[in-house]
Amino acid sequence: MFREKIKVLDCTIRDGGLVNKHDFSHEFVHKCYAGASAAGVDYFEIGYKNSRKLFPDPSFGPWKFCADDDIRRAIDGVEHGAKISVMADVGRVEMDAVRPASESPYQMVRVASYVKGVDKAISMVNAFHDLGYETCINLMAISRDQGSELDEAFDQCEKESHAKVIYLVDSFGALYQEDIARLVARARKYISKELGFHGHNNQQLAFSNTIEAVIREVNYLDASVYGMGRAAGNCTLELLLGFLKNPKYDIRPILDLISHDFIPLRKKHEWGYILPYVIMGQLGLHPQEAIAMRKGPEAEHYREFYDKVVSAGLE
Amino acid sequence: MFREKIKVLDCTIRDGGLVNKHDFSHEFVHKCYAGASAAGVDYFEIGYKNSRKLFPDPSFGPWKFCADDDIRRAIDGVEHGAKISVMADVGRVEMDAVRPASESPYQMVRVASYVKGVDKAISMVNAFHDLGYETCINLMAISRDQGSELDEAFDQCEKESHAKVIYLVDSFGALYQEDIARLVARARKYISKELGFHGHNNQQLAFSNTIEAVIREVNYLDASVYGMGRAAGNCTLELLLGFLKNPKYDIRPILDLISHDFIPLRKKHEWGYILPYVIMGQLGLHPQEAIAMRKGPEAEHYREFYDKVVSAGLE
Repeated sequence: MFREKIKVLDCTIRDGGLVNKHDFSHEFVHKCYAGASAAGVDYFEIGYKNSRKLFPDPSFGPWKFCADDDIRRAIDGVEHGAKISVMADVGRVEMDAVRPASESPYQMVRVASYVKGVDKAISMVNAFHDLGYETCINLMAISRDQGSELDEAFDQCEKESHAKVIYLVDSFGALYQEDIARLVARARKYISKELGFHGHNNQQLAFSNTIEAVIREVNYLDASVYGMGRAAGNCTLELLLGFLKNPKYDIRPILDLISHDFIPLRKKHEWGYILPYVIMGQLGLHPQEAIAMRKGPEAEHYREFYDKVVSAGLE
Repeated sequence: MFREKIKVLDCTIRDGGLVNKHDFSHEFVHKCYAGASAAGVDYFEIGYKNSRKLFPDPSFGPWKFCADDDIRRAIDGVEHGAKISVMADVGRVEMDAVRPASESPYQMVRVASYVKGVDKAISMVNAFHDLGYETCINLMAISRDQGSELDEAFDQCEKESHAKVIYLVDSFGALYQEDIARLVARARKYISKELGFHGHNNQQLAFSNTIEAVIREVNYLDASVYGMGRAAGNCTLELLLGFLKNPKYDIRPILDLISHDFIPLRKKHEWGYILPYVIMGQLGLHPQEAIAMRKGPEAEHYREFYDKVVSAGLE
């Protein structure tokens, strides 16, 4: 029997945008949106709501900024489409330029924050809430920040924020299924709101950790087509839709997208099961150093990279 | 704290041999054996012990037959090497030609069997046991055969066989972590011997299912370098060694093998996260049809393949 409260959020364009500088064509985003909507996906996260003034580099594509007109153009003509979500980073949004939800083409805003920055995230979430948006707080790097600051952040998210959903984000792909069970139980001591989970696939655990989250009554689940996302990528949408029992979900439009668009795209851009990302996941570290190493001449020197990262940690 | 009873079996050459007709050079097998031994792996499964008379096709490589001399040549010169295992299929071994364990270069024999063929497997295991070998029964396709025949097979493995280990084999990559917990508990109702787990990675669950098996006190764990194995492949050895806490395990020799040998090998032979294998795992079906489809002109027609397989099941 399926659980109706479960909602799937497709983060392909948003997290995948970290791989290609958010430079997807409007036509490509339109195809992804139409496919995700036909697959029964509940939310489609179309990018970041950054201020252009902070990122003047013209090589960034439109989905780093998500101008209302760009969103409208990409989703135009899709009937019964998924709700649109954008991600907001603390300090990077021009709040004065944000229209009320009733006048904008997106319905949800997710504010990403490290555990220690939660005060600022709450303030931002509440501002979006007051403009009429559904809101979430995505607590990043939760494998690293497990001291008492995490309890405090959970408590604040519950008491001070108007967020609808609090996401646990395994930014480094470092968590095992037992950790998910433990962290969800810890969050539940403080939080009565809905919980969400966003995994990274460094150790091929993003899908199984999402299943573990479902078992523990987490209802908001992130996934991306063919796992596209930074470094190792995310839980793949096709695995998640194959697992969930709600008959509204249909894997077939996603299979078409992979055949026609993501197999070619994967040849141009790299994400997935790549050893330096595995190593960073095992060690619970940010993938930045591995991403840089993959662009250099020693991209296949895995053991040397491992030795370097481990010995840097000992110094 | 680590669990000393945990044993890791590297099945790269044996299961990987299903991808390349067992045609690895002696030099390649030697490198893999030296690497696995340096990594602290406990058992190294070097191939199948088939009768050459049954497979006269000369394109099969040596590791479909595992002649004693071939094994000796491949492992020569490695000090403190892993124990050698071979796999035996019921009805395919020339038992008269098998030397006693004291005179052969391998120490363990694993007999693979479907649940319904367990009587024959037990008889074969006991014959190898009487020759002095450590023995295992690998119960294949356990996601499919879950009727009362499974209870009977567990009971027989315990009471009638001299096998040291009974393996649960998720041949189709169809099981989720809850299934592992349930199946191990069911096996434990009958079996006091050691249990093992061999996963396939169709749904990127081979590693997490192996972790689940560890949590449930399963001690014999199969994995392969870079996941090499039929279709979607296996739990990757590098993920498993990064998870286990016994200080004798060292991921570094495996990272070297991947850099130098398995990245080039993967360009020649296909295994891993490939959509038709995902689909067969989700549907709990044997990968044979997907393997054939991948060799044809419609190798990337995922949705059409899905529709075909699903509608065939409805007829």
